[in-house]
Amino acid sequence: MTVSPHDKARILSEALPYMQRYDGATVVVKYGGHAMGDEAVARAFASDIVLLEQAAINPVVVHGGGPQIQAMLGRLGIKSEFAAGLRITDAATVEIVEMVLAGSINKQMVGFINEAGGLAIGLSGKDGNMVLARKVTRSVVDADTFAGAIAGALKAKRLLLLTDVPGVLDRTKSLIKELTIDDARRLIADGTISGGMIPKVETCIYAIDRGVEAVVIMDGKVPHAVLLELLTDHGAGTLIHR
Amino acid sequence: MTVSPHDKARILSEALPYMQRYDGATVVVKYGGHAMGDEAVARAFASDIVLLEQAAINPVVVHGGGPQIQAMLGRLGIKSEFAAGLRITDAATVEIVEMVLAGSINKQMVGFINEAGGLAIGLSGKDGNMVLARKVTRSVVDADTFAGAIAGALKAKRLLLLTDVPGVLDRTKSLIKELTIDDARRLIADGTISGGMIPKVETCIYAIDRGVEAVVIMDGKVPHAVLLELLTDHGAGTLIHR
Amino acid sequence: MTVSPHDKARILSEALPYMQRYDGATVVVKYGGHAMGDEAVARAFASDIVLLEQAAINPVVVHGGGPQIQAMLGRLGIKSEFAAGLRITDAATVEIVEMVLAGSINKQMVGFINEAGGLAIGLSGKDGNMVLARKVTRSVVDADTFAGAIAGALKAKRLLLLTDVPGVLDRTKSLIKELTIDDARRLIADGTISGGMIPKVETCIYAIDRGVEAVVIMDGKVPHAVLLELLTDHGAGTLIHR
Amino acid sequence: MTVSPHDKARILSEALPYMQRYDGATVVVKYGGHAMGDEAVARAFASDIVLLEQAAINPVVVHGGGPQIQAMLGRLGIKSEFAAGLRITDAATVEIVEMVLAGSINKQMVGFINEAGGLAIGLSGKDGNMVLARKVTRSVVDADTFAGAIAGALKAKRLLLLTDVPGVLDRTKSLIKELTIDDARRLIADGTISGGMIPKVETCIYAIDRGVEAVVIMDGKVPHAVLLELLTDHGAGTLIHR
Amino acid sequence: MTVSPHDKARILSEALPYMQRYDGATVVVKYGGHAMGDEAVARAFASDIVLLEQAAINPVVVHGGGPQIQAMLGRLGIKSEFAAGLRITDAATVEIVEMVLAGSINKQMVGFINEAGGLAIGLSGKDGNMVLARKVTRSVVDADTFAGAIAGALKAKRLLLLTDVPGVLDRTKSLIKELTIDDARRLIADGTISGGMIPKVETCIYAIDRGVEAVVIMDGKVPHAVLLELLTDHGAGTLIHR
Amino acid sequence: MTVSPHDKARILSEALPYMQRYDGATVVVKYGGHAMGDEAVARAFASDIVLLEQAAINPVVVHGGGPQIQAMLGRLGIKSEFAAGLRITDAATVEIVEMVLAGSINKQMVGFINEAGGLAIGLSGKDGNMVLARKVTRSVVDADTFAGAIAGALKAKRLLLLTDVPGVLDRTKSLIKELTIDDARRLIADGTISGGMIPKVETCIYAIDRGVEAVVIMDGKVPHAVLLELLTDHGAGTLIHR
Repeated sequence: MTVSPHDKARILSEALPYMQRYDGATVVVKYGGHAMGDEAVARAFASDIVLLEQAAINPVVVHGGGPQIQAMLGRLGIKSEFAAGLRITDAATVEIVEMVLAGSINKQMVGFINEAGGLAIGLSGKDGNMVLARKVTRSVVDADTFAGAIAGALKAKRLLLLTDVPGVLDRTKSLIKELTIDDARRLIADGTISGGMIPKVETCIYAIDRGVEAVVIMDGKVPHAVLLELLTDHGAGTLIHR
Repeated sequence: MTVSPHDKARILSEALPYMQRYDGATVVVKYGGHAMGDEAVARAFASDIVLLEQAAINPVVVHGGGPQIQAMLGRLGIKSEFAAGLRITDAATVEIVEMVLAGSINKQMVGFINEAGGLAIGLSGKDGNMVLARKVTRSVVDADTFAGAIAGALKAKRLLLLTDVPGVLDRTKSLIKELTIDDARRLIADGTISGGMIPKVETCIYAIDRGVEAVVIMDGKVPHAVLLELLTDHGAGTLIHR
Repeated sequence: MTVSPHDKARILSEALPYMQRYDGATVVVKYGGHAMGDEAVARAFASDIVLLEQAAINPVVVHGGGPQIQAMLGRLGIKSEFAAGLRITDAATVEIVEMVLAGSINKQMVGFINEAGGLAIGLSGKDGNMVLARKVTRSVVDADTFAGAIAGALKAKRLLLLTDVPGVLDRTKSLIKELTIDDARRLIADGTISGGMIPKVETCIYAIDRGVEAVVIMDGKVPHAVLLELLTDHGAGTLIHR
Repeated sequence: MTVSPHDKARILSEALPYMQRYDGATVVVKYGGHAMGDEAVARAFASDIVLLEQAAINPVVVHGGGPQIQAMLGRLGIKSEFAAGLRITDAATVEIVEMVLAGSINKQMVGFINEAGGLAIGLSGKDGNMVLARKVTRSVVDADTFAGAIAGALKAKRLLLLTDVPGVLDRTKSLIKELTIDDARRLIADGTISGGMIPKVETCIYAIDRGVEAVVIMDGKVPHAVLLELLTDHGAGTLIHR
Repeated sequence: MTVSPHDKARILSEALPYMQRYDGATVVVKYGGHAMGDEAVARAFASDIVLLEQAAINPVVVHGGGPQIQAMLGRLGIKSEFAAGLRITDAATVEIVEMVLAGSINKQMVGFINEAGGLAIGLSGKDGNMVLARKVTRSVVDADTFAGAIAGALKAKRLLLLTDVPGVLDRTKSLIKELTIDDARRLIADGTISGGMIPKVETCIYAIDRGVEAVVIMDGKVPHAVLLELLTDHGAGTLIHR
Repeated sequence: MTVSPHDKARILSEALPYMQRYDGATVVVKYGGHAMGDEAVARAFASDIVLLEQAAINPVVVHGGGPQIQAMLGRLGIKSEFAAGLRITDAATVEIVEMVLAGSINKQMVGFINEAGGLAIGLSGKDGNMVLARKVTRSVVDADTFAGAIAGALKAKRLLLLTDVPGVLDRTKSLIKELTIDDARRLIADGTISGGMIPKVETCIYAIDRGVEAVVIMDGKVPHAVLLELLTDHGAGTLIHR
């Protein structure tokens, strides 16, 4: 769709109240390893992160790396088991996990952000002796949980959990637009929320309990998903709040 | 024209390189008194100024007030003469000019910006003993000249002179998109640039000589003219540079 | 009276304990519009304000402008009513009031202070979005009330209300040197304090309730009245305190 | 002489331009050990130093201690010789000199200034490893020379050398009000300036050569001599400048 | 004993955990006037103080001066009395005490520290108007008590009381390695701690009550006693703590 | 060898002049990947780095990772060629190199330093957009060269190149204790310096040309090699300077 420059200017002007809502706030974005596979998508995401900072929002990106870790473990002939959606890591595996996360995916994302004009520094839980984080990465190695802990520690205004589904679905497979944490607990209890969505929603509850204003579970494959959620009147995914 | 949220997000993302171009830069915007007459236009302008600051640009607004001054002089039965497009002010008139500019128009603009979420402070040349400015307002009382001096003193990246014409026109009344200051001097010499446009262009040359990177003479009546010029690929008006 | 240089030096040395009493403190001075009419008096006042700052006291001047507003309304043929000493302002009048206060009197005082070597900036309630102040000026337009609110918000050590009478008088028309706020309330109740002095004294009580240490109602026509009160052993006017 | 409060206020207001002349400037005052003998005089001097700081001037006091040193040396039965007005100090004497200067006179002056409301810290050349100063005090032990070096190092606006004579006298014993450093050199050469005044004037020339704007040799026994010189229109003593 | 460079490097590396224990902490060291008599010992002490600062510890030295004061009083033929280990000072004596402490011993110690590469400033209770300290020095003139007060005010991690005995001894004249303040009170009550050790231990209790973590009474004649206590695994003297 | 606590204290005190020599200075230490293989050695090195920081020296560690990279390439069946001691990296290899360096070795070293009480952050050339560094790592992938560039950019006082040989040897295989950069150039020209030592010495010359005061090529296998060189009188390896 072609938009005239005058319409572009108007659309920019309409973004002001959204920018003001998040002015000076910290927004933690959990970006899945799946999305890193497509370089064009990853670069577009990096550019959107730079735009947030340009608009006086403080973005923190937490990334996973499941597929890349799996691929590297495969190339090295190492097998790993999973339980409740979380990888069970032995001493041998954890070295590869750390190496792929901190040395490959992290640096690729840092490179994309900085090439888009940002000034990112990539940190792992070991850097600066961030003890809590380190404990988490060592024993659990789950980026959603880590993102929730980081968002709580930073008292983020929003935690965006970018996944490959539209959000939390009800029993008719329709998207639930908004949930309180009490609603969320009830839907877990009655089985509406199930499978891999359970730990995601539990992370949301955990983060909100530690001071995050709201969490959005949303589809990271939608182009400019982060901007769509934060800077337009279009509420993406499922908003979970107190 | 209706634009989908997904297109809006894309358009916002396309504004990033323009925001980065002016990141941390000072942009002086000369806003004419004519435009103050329409409150909706003035409020839209104020909102765009706030957006600039949100995007890490430092906007400085210099306003005139010709029509309002003229109206007040009329209500008070004071007559004033003009020469070469500049008002000839006697001791009796200058008090009214200062009162209308600093007490009425300035405070109205400050109010509009702050109601749009900004944090403007309205200054006159007397505040903080800004001597040069004071001398100018006292002897000349011309907002274009003042804006040029301010932009030069602040080493602004851009000076936008908002007028009620599209820019500098050639002899066929077509808009000239771009001029070097040498071009501009030649067009004044050969009569292509004439009348009230001469002091405007001379202000541009003066500002560029004092360190302003470029000046744009453009139509302030176009909605979101400032955003159109600074944050889209649409070059508005006439760009004058070294 | 001629004073020798040696006596001058001694008198300066005697001012030290008074300067130390107000060292680093905020003193709010309400200066009436009446006094603005005589330029020599206004310039002497401005010079005294600069001296306060030189002696490490933080002066804040709040000015009225009744006579000038009245004159401008007269020139424009606008009539206004008063109730209980406060002007009743309609939408048409308030624009003129703001214009005269912010554009004429304020800038004249800023000019006088800065020409005496100070570095004043003139602010109205709209500047920097000082909301409370704006609300007050909009609905009341009374400089005494405004000065009381400012002094309370700044936790000023002194509020000096410069008027054209010596202070609060008793029933024999003698100056009352000192009043507690309880005394003041009783004198309003029994009719000793009456007329235009009532809102002034109520402003004093209001300011002291909000943290101002003491208020002085005093005659601003006395030369160097501010220095006389603050930096000599001569208590001017009526001192009101808790 | 009795001065009315109104005249006191006027006299204070007349001091403003003098305060502004020295605003933020460093003024070094050499205070002789002779004057320390009279506690009332020393306390008045200390109070004047505090007033300077209150008026935004940065005073630095350099003190001597000849009489007190002489008295202590006498009590201990130590004899010392003088050459050209400077004490010749052997290793045995220098310990007593340092002890009296740093432990007795310095702490007495610090006490007087702080009891007058100041916040002085007394330093000797050893504190903070002020090497140059230490070298001077060790080999010369002359407070005038030291004061000149300190004033030069601090680029002081004024060095006031308080002595027990009115200033530099001509051959008729009349006070010379003003001297350039060239004048001063000529008067030393032709014998007009002689005896103990020669090293004082040489200190003035030395200090001015190192960036001090002007030096005043003046009578420290005059009450409030420092205020008289700095804050009134009465030029005390002999002003020496480039 | 000759130690190889490789062993020196190893010993340095072993000091790291001790440096880390006191990192950024304040350590107050009371240094007796007795030790000042031997210049080599005093210079070694000064050098150790500089090493503490180099290792990110903030040392504060409090010095006495009994022998030097006594010697000067003797030379001047002034007699003084003692009660309970504290000097009884009359108005005549206190001047000599201050002069010797602030002008002689203090400046000698400052000189030694600065010649070892430190940047010490020597202060007395009068400097900077440290009122409490001044009161103490004036009425008591006991450096142990003063050191306890300083250590308490600074919330020091350690107060080291350097004396000329190994520490607190039991009835068999054996060193007591460690005492709680309750132990210490009991040993004073039952007479085990007696004589001049009583006020020292009471100073320890006083300091710990005001927030000092622990105090060590130790022999200042041992070479590098301060480093031995703070930076090696050798606990010197008697450690007293809550 | 057993050293008494008193000797330990003396040895610590003897380290002061060495600490003072490097006070506040930056020291870049190039640590080879070979040494990372032995965890005890790597932890001892990390602890020494923390001691440097404790002693007010600013250490920057640059690490290689040749053996670990080689091992990982081997596990993955990737072959790489070398030329003049530098690895020739194709696009496929560079990913593994970055992953091992930034994700495995870097994080291991960060962990060791932080577990020793430091507060290290591990950066790669991509972090914070350190362009020059990035270019180097991308095209060359040689840690010595990178360390020289970093040391030059930081104007380090010392660059320590830790290798597995004692330093630069002469033709009789004896250690050369000290070289000027002119000496070094001559020894390269006449063949005395040869093989893999040539690029190391060229890095030294490069670093010194860019402002590093001196470089030491030394044996990193010696326990506490860094402390031995910096904090004792034992000059380790070959010192190269202007």
